[in-house]
Amino acid sequence: MTTATTSRAYAVARLERLPAHGVWSPVLTPVTADYAIDTGRFLQQARWVLEQGCHGLALFGTTSEANSFSVEERIGLLDAVIEAGIPADRLMVGTGCNAITDSTELTAHAASHGVHRVLMLPPFYYKGMSDEGLARAFGTVIERVNDPDLRVFLYHFPRLSGVPITLGLLNLLAARYGETIAGVKDSSGDWDNTAAMIERFPQLAIFPGSEIFLLQGLEAGAAGCITATSNVNPSGSRAVWDAWTSDDGSAGERQELATAIRRALETEQPVPGQKWLIASERGDAAWKTVRPPMLELGDAQGAALIEATHAAGFDPASVAIG
Amino acid sequence: MTTATTSRAYAVARLERLPAHGVWSPVLTPVTADYAIDTGRFLQQARWVLEQGCHGLALFGTTSEANSFSVEERIGLLDAVIEAGIPADRLMVGTGCNAITDSTELTAHAASHGVHRVLMLPPFYYKGMSDEGLARAFGTVIERVNDPDLRVFLYHFPRLSGVPITLGLLNLLAARYGETIAGVKDSSGDWDNTAAMIERFPQLAIFPGSEIFLLQGLEAGAAGCITATSNVNPSGSRAVWDAWTSDDGSAGERQELATAIRRALETEQPVPGQKWLIASERGDAAWKTVRPPMLELGDAQGAALIEATHAAGFDPASVAIG
Repeated sequence: MTTATTSRAYAVARLERLPAHGVWSPVLTPVTADYAIDTGRFLQQARWVLEQGCHGLALFGTTSEANSFSVEERIGLLDAVIEAGIPADRLMVGTGCNAITDSTELTAHAASHGVHRVLMLPPFYYKGMSDEGLARAFGTVIERVNDPDLRVFLYHFPRLSGVPITLGLLNLLAARYGETIAGVKDSSGDWDNTAAMIERFPQLAIFPGSEIFLLQGLEAGAAGCITATSNVNPSGSRAVWDAWTSDDGSAGERQELATAIRRALETEQPVPGQKWLIASERGDAAWKTVRPPMLELGDAQGAALIEATHAAGFDPASVAIG
Repeated sequence: MTTATTSRAYAVARLERLPAHGVWSPVLTPVTADYAIDTGRFLQQARWVLEQGCHGLALFGTTSEANSFSVEERIGLLDAVIEAGIPADRLMVGTGCNAITDSTELTAHAASHGVHRVLMLPPFYYKGMSDEGLARAFGTVIERVNDPDLRVFLYHFPRLSGVPITLGLLNLLAARYGETIAGVKDSSGDWDNTAAMIERFPQLAIFPGSEIFLLQGLEAGAAGCITATSNVNPSGSRAVWDAWTSDDGSAGERQELATAIRRALETEQPVPGQKWLIASERGDAAWKTVRPPMLELGDAQGAALIEATHAAGFDPASVAIG
């Protein structure tokens, strides 16, 4: 065994001790013509991304249109997921709302199902809040849920939320709540920020919010990635993960392909885009529907997306089922 | 009767035909030590701002920390306000949430109490949404509530929401929903935008979101103002309104004073600031509490605020009750 291989084995063992690791998918939320959650298609998609190699499902992320659904709708869908037999330890549930009462209700509900990993946005309407104010918002939820097994992943997506998870806020929370503070999804797209979080908080599972940073992240000590585009290209990210953990020498090449496909999927309207692609390749027009304020893609936009992904080396037909 | 006076009388008559007019107050929401809504203090404040001359109450605005409360909490407070005998026609209820299901529930609830004026933020998590997508979000709520008496005021506060109410969106909505689209609260602080809305949509009640623009707005055809600082200086804005509508020649001077006081209250944390000022002047420390992510002011910040308002010509003691 070479030194390099030994070192990789240690790194993989460290990953497995983190509060979460791997490639996680914020599952798209299909909706019916009247914008209600389509539980059947949701479960089909959830199972498909797991079969394709995702380590877990990050339910109710940005890509899931989570903020467009009520607390009651989100509770109903998680109930259905659990009832369908998807294991609680393969779930991370988005529970961060503007109201601490809502975040508490969603977090307590997830925990009641044995789902202890939650991904929390900060309250995001009011801007310019202090780290202390934000720490109190998260802390109130943690104290009210009062479950020692709870593991909170903080969701840093300043472009959409307008409210950053700063290093100072992480410091405050880690000092107050110890191992309950488990990680971060960093969707800033700013590698320097991701690297700073990994360096300052080696005990946390830091997930870049895009597979573009997957290999770079693994080399630096990140936990994997939580990535929107795993809804159509889950195996692409998983291939990077497998190549790196097994140290088979192909990780760079696999990362290059995953990155090219990701770039093709990064349109101005990524959620309607992925839904359109699935609708098209599964011959299932219902998938095109998004809940307002999002708007479904037109046919020409959709065709351009298919062409772009194809040009990037992706076979859009791979999202077909059955 | 001079021509100028006649012309003012016509302008006032036009104001009274608008879907709403006057000085409206987004009432602060006092909370208990565990961050629950303090209904008793809320009702006291609601009655006080009406007694001090506000034409109506804009419940659940930004200043009310509305987005920090759940749908259930907001419903409970409106029930209490109605039960306390505050007339439905002096209310405008904030009902715009991220989820169209939540906005529908809040709007239908208000309408069920005979409160037909609602102030709606757009869904504000997802950025870069199209006017058509936003029109569908508002339109879905309007169609589901399905009440011909409903009057929707759109809430334009791009600095906090990140989602503007554009002239194009107003065009779409006015064309589709006619007189249901009743007005705009323009908290952009951009007079050119306010002026453009007044000019393009003379049938709508356009409310600047600050009394700084009250006189300028009235001269240009605005409906009045909906202003945060009416929680501590309601009579200041009302005095501008009365001077202008009665054409007594004192409007300019009254506006100057109201503007100076407003500037003193425009700190980085205006909601904790107004709450601190009320707590201090009413000798009622409970008023200092804000719900996270906001943070209450410290004593030194509070003292500086009192001093600044005093220097601006305001008597902080005027917020005292009884």
